[in-house]
Amino acid sequence: MQIAILLFEGITPLDAVGPYEVLRSLPGAEVVFAGHRVGPVRSEGGRLGLIVDAELADVPAPDVVLVPGGPGQVALMDDEPVHAWLRAVDATSVWTTSVCTGSLVLAAAGLLTGRRATSYWLALDQLAELGAVPTAERVVVDGKYMTAAGVSAGIDMALTLAARLAGDSVAQALQLGVEYDPHPPFDAGSPRTAPPEIVAALRARSRFILQGTA
Amino acid sequence: MQIAILLFEGITPLDAVGPYEVLRSLPGAEVVFAGHRVGPVRSEGGRLGLIVDAELADVPAPDVVLVPGGPGQVALMDDEPVHAWLRAVDATSVWTTSVCTGSLVLAAAGLLTGRRATSYWLALDQLAELGAVPTAERVVVDGKYMTAAGVSAGIDMALTLAARLAGDSVAQALQLGVEYDPHPPFDAGSPRTAPPEIVAALRARSRFILQGTA
Repeated sequence: MQIAILLFEGITPLDAVGPYEVLRSLPGAEVVFAGHRVGPVRSEGGRLGLIVDAELADVPAPDVVLVPGGPGQVALMDDEPVHAWLRAVDATSVWTTSVCTGSLVLAAAGLLTGRRATSYWLALDQLAELGAVPTAERVVVDGKYMTAAGVSAGIDMALTLAARLAGDSVAQALQLGVEYDPHPPFDAGSPRTAPPEIVAALRARSRFILQGTA
Repeated sequence: MQIAILLFEGITPLDAVGPYEVLRSLPGAEVVFAGHRVGPVRSEGGRLGLIVDAELADVPAPDVVLVPGGPGQVALMDDEPVHAWLRAVDATSVWTTSVCTGSLVLAAAGLLTGRRATSYWLALDQLAELGAVPTAERVVVDGKYMTAAGVSAGIDMALTLAARLAGDSVAQALQLGVEYDPHPPFDAGSPRTAPPEIVAALRARSRFILQGTA
């Protein structure tokens, strides 16, 4: 089983690395990091370099495709080679998935039209504009399309995906393997639970964040 | 404020990227990825390439130092240049921190002797052998030493660290920024909650995992 994770300039690395860390240990699975060109890309703000190991054309039929998000997602919204690749791999994929604003790219490629999907909490309106049915849940499954909410939600999605692919016991072993027993010191990870003034402050900044300038 | 995250061959990337994703947005903070040589290192199993941007000698006095874990930690246990760097930066650091088996490296460098600390759940015995007081908690603080349990625990640690450095409101905004509202599909992320047969199976394999062959 081949799992392709898209890397691109301006990615939010946790969107990719969270699922990677779970799925790399899935029995029989091989994870490949694919992108426009083999070599380094830089994360949001240029701070972390990650290496693309395969060009898109060299990954024509992964069983699972995962599109992360991040400020660089903006440039992918009209990146026709990426859209064409996503439509092509989607034709044979077992699962087509995204984390955070990666779902906006799937939607821009025409793959989420009329489907329930989620995204970064500040991007749900944009997801609706792109023809999907935005659903404010941590992980949303509609047919073979699995989308995760923002950034850290990719870990939850990867465990859900592992369970669908290999069964609950395997997924539980993967969860223990990455010791995913979350104990955040605050209950502020969702707009439904964070202090309202913090939600408002991030919402005010979101126009800029989602345009890739943050 | 400078935050140095150590990268090395055989790292578990989530140990580094989880905290990075939280701390990169800390007001006034700059994250630098440091290692033996500028250029790429490969994660456990060689699957993900990450880029070192600064040699250890070029990061002589970070305010925060963070040591991730992973199978490659084994090679760091007698890596005297890394130990010397850790002791030097610890002399002036505000916080000296680790995720997963990174605490074994801090302990091997002599920095956790007699201190309460945690590590990957399968490495707590080894932490004791190295002179620390193993403590099976998600995040352990002893003076300026903050250690996290396995892999995903680095996210919880980074939020705890952000609160200490910049206050609860800033930490809560960072948590909402990465939408860290965890909803794992199973309650199997700790040896206390996972099915006993899964704990036993991972424990049986652990000798090999911790020796870097997994």
